[in-house]
Amino acid sequence: MPAISPDLVGIKGDPSTYSWDAKDAMLYACGVGARPYDDLDFLFEGKGPKVLPTFAVIGGMAGMGVMGQLEGINPMLILHGSQAITLHREIPSSGKVTLQGELTELWDKGSAAVIGITTTATDDNGPLFSATANIFARGSGGFGGERGPSTKGVNAPPERAPDHTVSDDTRLEQAAIYRLSGDRNPLHIDPEFAKVGGFDTPILHGLCTYGFVGRAILKTLCGNDPARFKSFEARFSDVVYPGDTIITKLWVDGKEAIVQAETQKGNVVLSGAKATFA
Amino acid sequence: MPAISPDLVGIKGDPSTYSWDAKDAMLYACGVGARPYDDLDFLFEGKGPKVLPTFAVIGGMAGMGVMGQLEGINPMLILHGSQAITLHREIPSSGKVTLQGELTELWDKGSAAVIGITTTATDDNGPLFSATANIFARGSGGFGGERGPSTKGVNAPPERAPDHTVSDDTRLEQAAIYRLSGDRNPLHIDPEFAKVGGFDTPILHGLCTYGFVGRAILKTLCGNDPARFKSFEARFSDVVYPGDTIITKLWVDGKEAIVQAETQKGNVVLSGAKATFA
Repeated sequence: MPAISPDLVGIKGDPSTYSWDAKDAMLYACGVGARPYDDLDFLFEGKGPKVLPTFAVIGGMAGMGVMGQLEGINPMLILHGSQAITLHREIPSSGKVTLQGELTELWDKGSAAVIGITTTATDDNGPLFSATANIFARGSGGFGGERGPSTKGVNAPPERAPDHTVSDDTRLEQAAIYRLSGDRNPLHIDPEFAKVGGFDTPILHGLCTYGFVGRAILKTLCGNDPARFKSFEARFSDVVYPGDTIITKLWVDGKEAIVQAETQKGNVVLSGAKATFA
Repeated sequence: MPAISPDLVGIKGDPSTYSWDAKDAMLYACGVGARPYDDLDFLFEGKGPKVLPTFAVIGGMAGMGVMGQLEGINPMLILHGSQAITLHREIPSSGKVTLQGELTELWDKGSAAVIGITTTATDDNGPLFSATANIFARGSGGFGGERGPSTKGVNAPPERAPDHTVSDDTRLEQAAIYRLSGDRNPLHIDPEFAKVGGFDTPILHGLCTYGFVGRAILKTLCGNDPARFKSFEARFSDVVYPGDTIITKLWVDGKEAIVQAETQKGNVVLSGAKATFA
């Protein structure tokens, strides 16, 4: 197993396959707060179901195995720093893709390493989606790499009122439902584990927040049509607790929008964010 | 296929098998409103997970195939009249049972037939649970059978204040989650289908209400220990809408309790109900 080194950029994991069906898609939709009856298309097989574009992160997660090739990463100390997805086509109700994970970025922030992993998903018709996760690995910096670009000011909201604001409640049980789509980290359900991790109570998955915000983008910019959702990138900047309200603000410029999300407490939880649509 | 006749009592379906795992048990728990952190045992594999006793209805449903042997039943016109479960042992986190369905009751109510089907579930250690569903088949009565006993006054609450009252909110998305455990009747999710069925909006599954009330029984009478939950029978007497609050009232007498549930509107939705516990 190689120690972290700048030379590792470009290494790939073993390809794997990922299959999903209508139940997986609907369970994911419940996990990210899809509601009857506005989001019926995503909750009812009688309407397909359609698949939320951010479902790409579920397949994307399965391609993260490439990280297992890195020595010196403490799984207890990693945080999800940012997430991007690109949709090449609408995700079908059920399907099977080949996933290929690749280490696409590696930065040395001193105390931490930032590891970017891009997973591409391909089905019989070609590329379907790609998902890039940036992982902040505390305690794994100092390996002599470059610091990398600053994220400061990237996708900063313009100084005017947002064009759209969408407010959506998470439920106390939101993480309990979301985790059934695959991310079983006890940090999101077990109060004792959360305390060890430094939190008063379990916290919501960053990718659950990402899904809520993705729904707001889909509704306001794409008329709830997943085929019009092209990409979404965002940084996780603060913690969301199950039960919080997620307030998504969108500033539209042509076929792009700057996105920011905060909770009812006013803290910005998702920032440096941009969506593109058709 | 035999027409409905009193002679049919005792016919059995083909045995089938039913398997479940921790995810199925946790998804069911989410479906019937289990909450962090009171119900953590049922939502987190780190605690087993434990399995809610009313999960027996999910396996029980799979044994209902015996009804397919009856001629003259219109699936669009059937209603779930009542449900009973008996737990012989605590349901394990994952398992596999052989299910045997049997037509155990058949009554002629004039316009409707009442069909009782008991499904017994057996694993390698013997009987695990049984579940009896009484189905009200509109338009299938008048076959010359007996009317059967009246349910009037059965398990009527005593004339005193209940010993326990548990109030629990259902969510607008409750049926969307519950249906992922298997009952995909569009009546519970599709507004257009619900209108055809005579309802303004989709209604909650009776068995979802049954699960909410089962949790109230488990918490108040069994200290949340499924091993102490022995049986629960109830009639579905009115409609619950997703978003309603379910208020369960319990009158305890030794190791039994009379149970009744109503919504915030005061209408009794579950009646003639009794639970036994150890």
